[in-house]
Amino acid sequence: MTRNDVTPRFEPSDPDFAVRVKQSFSDQAIMQPLGAVMRGVEPGRVEIELPYHQRLTQQDGFIHAGVSATIMDSACGYAAFSLMRRSARVLTIEFKTNLLAPAAGNCFRAVGQVRKAGRTVFFAEAELHALSDDADKLVATMSATLMAVQG
Amino acid sequence: MTRNDVTPRFEPSDPDFAVRVKQSFSDQAIMQPLGAVMRGVEPGRVEIELPYHQRLTQQDGFIHAGVSATIMDSACGYAAFSLMRRSARVLTIEFKTNLLAPAAGNCFRAVGQVRKAGRTVFFAEAELHALSDDADKLVATMSATLMAVQG
Amino acid sequence: MTRNDVTPRFEPSDPDFAVRVKQSFSDQAIMQPLGAVMRGVEPGRVEIELPYHQRLTQQDGFIHAGVSATIMDSACGYAAFSLMRRSARVLTIEFKTNLLAPAAGNCFRAVGQVRKAGRTVFFAEAELHALSDDADKLVATMSATLMAVQG
Amino acid sequence: MTRNDVTPRFEPSDPDFAVRVKQSFSDQAIMQPLGAVMRGVEPGRVEIELPYHQRLTQQDGFIHAGVSATIMDSACGYAAFSLMRRSARVLTIEFKTNLLAPAAGNCFRAVGQVRKAGRTVFFAEAELHALSDDADKLVATMSATLMAVQG
Repeated sequence: MTRNDVTPRFEPSDPDFAVRVKQSFSDQAIMQPLGAVMRGVEPGRVEIELPYHQRLTQQDGFIHAGVSATIMDSACGYAAFSLMRRSARVLTIEFKTNLLAPAAGNCFRAVGQVRKAGRTVFFAEAELHALSDDADKLVATMSATLMAVQG
Repeated sequence: MTRNDVTPRFEPSDPDFAVRVKQSFSDQAIMQPLGAVMRGVEPGRVEIELPYHQRLTQQDGFIHAGVSATIMDSACGYAAFSLMRRSARVLTIEFKTNLLAPAAGNCFRAVGQVRKAGRTVFFAEAELHALSDDADKLVATMSATLMAVQG
Repeated sequence: MTRNDVTPRFEPSDPDFAVRVKQSFSDQAIMQPLGAVMRGVEPGRVEIELPYHQRLTQQDGFIHAGVSATIMDSACGYAAFSLMRRSARVLTIEFKTNLLAPAAGNCFRAVGQVRKAGRTVFFAEAELHALSDDADKLVATMSATLMAVQG
Repeated sequence: MTRNDVTPRFEPSDPDFAVRVKQSFSDQAIMQPLGAVMRGVEPGRVEIELPYHQRLTQQDGFIHAGVSATIMDSACGYAAFSLMRRSARVLTIEFKTNLLAPAAGNCFRAVGQVRKAGRTVFFAEAELHALSDDADKLVATMSATLMAVQG
């Protein structure tokens, strides 16, 4: 893939984007019962981490695909939000996730990356990695369309 | 759409499918913190309900898109699982969700429906409706590919 | 599914929507080599037909999934376009298609239906049916996000 | 993104995979009216090129999104096929494409890359780049699930 060649560098329109992103993330009440924390914020790129917990599992003891989707969606959404103007809100229009392997591990890291920033419509992708003592495994991917809503 | 014309009636291979589906759903630990309950199980069709709770929200007070995805994914997965053999487990290969309106309401109902049942690969769709005192609004859709894993 | 209950009736803002849709469809040069014809135009609903031809096939003699996607995308796009203002152009933001069965048959019918019409963003679904002498089989589905571009 | 870190090297089970892939691609009748040619075949990676032609366009003179999807689907499908056993056929289960920019340019290059190779189910991604005299622009992405069918 020529992906890395083409991933653009983004200039945030709001120099305080990181504060704004972290504030909004902490307003997502759902992240507390999930135990998810934001680890990194760069222009167009956000990292969210989720420690394994039994209460997040599906019937076979793996993290539920919907939980994986939740943190990948937030990673995509905040990656887009980091590039939006101060006054904008972010809405997810759609996302698709492919589950490549059972989400088993000690900790899960979702990295969301904007690949196209339009005036109102953004495209972002995320990957979810399962981390164990000595392994880092790709377990899911997401592609998402986000929208900046003014006012 | 000619959907209703073509939605097939499904014959479950396991007459006790409903018991099996409900048992597996109750093994999904995540459903407890979410507060989701299974409301109906028919061959190839499952209904899951989720009362609104503040702890499930994103930054604007709506149910997080990932939570919506979680119960639609389970609705699709168990719709497929209802048609599988007793010995099978169900895995989600992929899903896509379109968010049509903010998930605001007192209660949310996800209905998953199998539209194609293969030997190992199943296709299902779900809709998420937001219910308020006097309204029933479609807020999201999902299409999903599920897999039967034997043994 | 409660789909039919919730599929809204749409009021086209342009009373001459059908003329505008047919004109634009006839401007899609690709439809000629494919042999696709528009069969029906209603507010928020468009039907496109494609006779089988060997030149449209993939390696096993079925209609190529990309050809199926092409007419479903046009069905979704023109279903949305039928509801747009006279001055708007339509762009596809994204679509996903699930291929449920090999596209084998004498003729293929794509029906696109808008399910949510926003100011600029539209959501539509399509189904592709394969028609033979005495059978009508669902072979693919699509969900798509369309955008109205002004000017 | 940490993509490149995790993209695995694939060992093809069939040493003559390239011959097999090219033969099957040349059996896709649709590629001739489209004017698409296969440019590169590696284990798990396929490149397809499509020169611009007016007959491939939608109403605004850009390459139709369905045509873009057609060559990305084939790039994904043959990337997966390159890793399958000699006796297998390849079927697309689903794909999703995001259209990031109008497909304008002299030539279009689709690169398909397998990211997960299972026994029967494969996951691949593709990117479509529009090439002009002095520019290389990402115009679309695809994620796809493919299936190996034995016999």
